[in-house]
Amino acid sequence: MELIKKPVTGMKEMMPREMEIRNYVMKVISETYASFGFTQIETPCLEDIRNLLSKQGGENEKLIFKVLKRGEKLNLSEASSEADLTDMGLRYDLTVPLVRFYSNNANELPTPFKALQMGNVWRADRPQRGRYRQFMQCDIDIFGEPSDAAEIELILATTTTLGKIGFKNFEIRINERRLLRAMADYAGFKGERFGTVCIILDKLDKIGLDGVKAELLAEGFSVESVDKYCGLFETVTNDLAGLKKMKELLGDSVAPEVIESLNDIIESVEAVKTADFKMVFDPSLVRGMGYYTGTIFEIAIPEFGGSCGGGGRYDKLVGNFTGTDVPACGFSIGFERIVLLLLESGFQIPGSKEKCAFLFEKSLTPAQYVKVLKEAAEMRKEGKTVLVVKMNKNKKFQKEKLTAEGYTDFKEFYADSFGA
Amino acid sequence: MELIKKPVTGMKEMMPREMEIRNYVMKVISETYASFGFTQIETPCLEDIRNLLSKQGGENEKLIFKVLKRGEKLNLSEASSEADLTDMGLRYDLTVPLVRFYSNNANELPTPFKALQMGNVWRADRPQRGRYRQFMQCDIDIFGEPSDAAEIELILATTTTLGKIGFKNFEIRINERRLLRAMADYAGFKGERFGTVCIILDKLDKIGLDGVKAELLAEGFSVESVDKYCGLFETVTNDLAGLKKMKELLGDSVAPEVIESLNDIIESVEAVKTADFKMVFDPSLVRGMGYYTGTIFEIAIPEFGGSCGGGGRYDKLVGNFTGTDVPACGFSIGFERIVLLLLESGFQIPGSKEKCAFLFEKSLTPAQYVKVLKEAAEMRKEGKTVLVVKMNKNKKFQKEKLTAEGYTDFKEFYADSFGA
Repeated sequence: MELIKKPVTGMKEMMPREMEIRNYVMKVISETYASFGFTQIETPCLEDIRNLLSKQGGENEKLIFKVLKRGEKLNLSEASSEADLTDMGLRYDLTVPLVRFYSNNANELPTPFKALQMGNVWRADRPQRGRYRQFMQCDIDIFGEPSDAAEIELILATTTTLGKIGFKNFEIRINERRLLRAMADYAGFKGERFGTVCIILDKLDKIGLDGVKAELLAEGFSVESVDKYCGLFETVTNDLAGLKKMKELLGDSVAPEVIESLNDIIESVEAVKTADFKMVFDPSLVRGMGYYTGTIFEIAIPEFGGSCGGGGRYDKLVGNFTGTDVPACGFSIGFERIVLLLLESGFQIPGSKEKCAFLFEKSLTPAQYVKVLKEAAEMRKEGKTVLVVKMNKNKKFQKEKLTAEGYTDFKEFYADSFGA
Repeated sequence: MELIKKPVTGMKEMMPREMEIRNYVMKVISETYASFGFTQIETPCLEDIRNLLSKQGGENEKLIFKVLKRGEKLNLSEASSEADLTDMGLRYDLTVPLVRFYSNNANELPTPFKALQMGNVWRADRPQRGRYRQFMQCDIDIFGEPSDAAEIELILATTTTLGKIGFKNFEIRINERRLLRAMADYAGFKGERFGTVCIILDKLDKIGLDGVKAELLAEGFSVESVDKYCGLFETVTNDLAGLKKMKELLGDSVAPEVIESLNDIIESVEAVKTADFKMVFDPSLVRGMGYYTGTIFEIAIPEFGGSCGGGGRYDKLVGNFTGTDVPACGFSIGFERIVLLLLESGFQIPGSKEKCAFLFEKSLTPAQYVKVLKEAAEMRKEGKTVLVVKMNKNKKFQKEKLTAEGYTDFKEFYADSFGA
């Protein structure tokens, strides 16, 4: 039988050049977060299907790659639905597995627990350019820290990392789920319709404020409420002054600590930041996942169209596993977008080793070949990369290709030119 | 619904200490192989089920985690077998995916192509201590190099890596599939029963030479043949002299280049090696996988009972995808065994950063907290790890725990003690 040469639909093969960049970005990420005291952990790629289908994952739950039961557990003749056939699935994010991990191991972990995860996730999305069905996520999370210290640290660590990779002039946008709710209350939207309001507001970037107005009206909200709501985005600026203004406008609708907390985070991060970026108060920031309970934030890098990662506070998720809530806050970097940008911009990895190629004639004796290998071993001890490779007939072409691979030094070995 | 806290059966969660060791070992591996000119690539964790079930994988094909078809492709009511339900599976090794990758991308890859892969594989094995259903494999392979240069380089690169991790006094055992066949011919075993002979010889370590004799006789082979065959292992020593002796005994049964090649590999590696190990000729080495066509080799580390990785030449696999054979040779390091050994021996990672913990009183003002964070940022710039963490009521216990996590320096910050 002829075998299939292509990778499975929607999944990517990583060529050497991309792997170099991926490894470099992973190295900067793991070293920088480690310097903040984050420790790396890893969970299996497969999770119990019941955890994956427990409504933590929103829309992603429709995209799970499910694994067939094995052996006696699989009873095809009596199976009446998918649920009878599967017991596990590939994880669609790193948050559900991390919360499970924390619930399972909390006794052995420090408090607060500061976790770094880098791992693949899978989603059976419709394949499209630049979006793959297997992709790397890179998450940091802090468990057991109820105060702003968690947010401040997550933002500082993440922005320090982005700065080290070389990003400049970006923004961290921040908002609060409780503020979003207060804004809806202030406008007079009914509480149970908060989700609908958020879904429409989330489109602001694409459809503009007029579009948001139109969609809210189409949903049957009153002109008065819609005007009051949309007025907020016209009045309030994206800075601390805007935050103060928001507080004045909302009055009793918003708890003072919500505003205070946003103010402290923005001020502290601005005071301590080491990278070239700006903290921005963005009252229109929504973030999709339903599990957020407090702050939400997002990275906006000018080179990208949309967001390049984000996160927020989710104080209720651990309770789903243990019955007891634990404060939790996380930040996910858009690893694949960063890699793609570096790859397409011809990024040169800093501090790369000098690369030498030894080309040897095929007719070398074993003893001569040993001499070549010994010389290569000596140079490697000095920290160089040495490729030992047979000389092709078209040596010029061979060297051109090696030059394209980053080899800058060449040495040739001929059977004739060896001493006795 | 209560969620499930445990990971799925037979799969492991990686705690911070293990992740540190894993990352360190991966770093040594990737840096060392890179210094030999190997480039890293990656393939998706999922493969087309037809490739996985194409008889390249031997027994492993029974252990595949299969993925359920999705959407319209899944037709449960008409499905009569597993094959109707699945279109992909999790890879059980890195060799099948690599051969597919090479077949798909050969035009863009250099010749010879020297690949490093580090990635998880999955096997639905019966769970047992120290063996997991998801584990990391670490393979290096050379495509397009028909000569011994491939074997020599794979063995030198792998042993240099093991030496850098700290292993000493180990062995690389080498044999040749064609020699195994010549030995069977010499003894008078029928060609078609070669597989059976290999399966029995493979048990030599466990059942001894008498056990091998008994099993061969039980299979119906003649006493004369069995004596002649087993006599080889009594007569032939594990060194170059033994190899010479083997050549004399086998005479015309073995092609001269088989012996020459083994001799050259052993001599060259011994002459160039940089790690503390010994090349050993082992005529009883079999290696399980049926796809090997020439040399086979194995790592034996005294700290382990059995083998800690191995490999060999498989010149016929690419032909299954493209119709044209390409010389190929690979070496797989027993990554999980190495990590387990380091973990259990209390391995200290060389060159670890100095780790400081800043303990701050909960009552610090935001401005005071900013000062703490700034001081931490300054120390991180000097290359240190700085954990900033709230002081607990039981500070002594907190420091003890931090000391156990590797923190050696402590600094405390009190609201009272800050200047104006």
